[in-house]
Amino acid sequence: MMLNSQWIVGFVDGEGCFHVGVNKNTEMSIGYQVLPEFTVVQHERDIQVLYALKAYFKCGVVRKNHGDRQDYRVRNIKHLNEIIVPFFMEHSLKTKKNVDFRKFRDVLLLMQASKHLTIDGIEEIRNIKNQMK
Amino acid sequence: MMLNSQWIVGFVDGEGCFHVGVNKNTEMSIGYQVLPEFTVVQHERDIQVLYALKAYFKCGVVRKNHGDRQDYRVRNIKHLNEIIVPFFMEHSLKTKKNVDFRKFRDVLLLMQASKHLTIDGIEEIRNIKNQMK
Repeated sequence: MMLNSQWIVGFVDGEGCFHVGVNKNTEMSIGYQVLPEFTVVQHERDIQVLYALKAYFKCGVVRKNHGDRQDYRVRNIKHLNEIIVPFFMEHSLKTKKNVDFRKFRDVLLLMQASKHLTIDGIEEIRNIKNQMK
Repeated sequence: MMLNSQWIVGFVDGEGCFHVGVNKNTEMSIGYQVLPEFTVVQHERDIQVLYALKAYFKCGVVRKNHGDRQDYRVRNIKHLNEIIVPFFMEHSLKTKKNVDFRKFRDVLLLMQASKHLTIDGIEEIRNIKNQMK
């Protein structure tokens, strides 16, 4: 199944999720780990669409979510910065999910500046995260 | 907001619904009324996307759904036959929703042949409806 960029934008406007996790992690010197992820969840009957997304973006994984659901997920920071973010900068989401995407991008930019390794940076990322749906 | 056909396909793959209602209606000589409808439901924050769908298809209505949800809905049989069905025949849905769409179309074809005005036709439409998600 070959996907079209505008089809992907429409599908992600409906089904995609830009999420930022800020998790306690005592192995990190700052005590917290920031985990941005892009996911698309589908009923397992449509797993072929998730594999088509993986093939299109040439990154990410398809894995079991919960129950009869599967997801396509990208967590690798390099792949988010170099593939996922540029795609949605070039092809704008049309719903309010675009607001979430912009905040997601803001967090990635802070991480590129290593702000997530400082207490102030974690606080700033938390504030952005709290504005996301 | 101008919509692109492939964006619409992707969005409807995620958020659209092809539904066939078979309702008791004593005003109909056969005792049942068949009500096919195409809907897209969104949180009210994205009502502008629903109006963009209405503008694109030049048919249907945007109305309150439940709570903080709004929907774009096409119930008019002529509009379903002449606008919505041809659009999704030309631009195929990529998820299993396409299977539902084909059954939805089968019901509309039976209605064009006036089968919904016979007991056997109602039974046939019910059978198709029961195979839909």
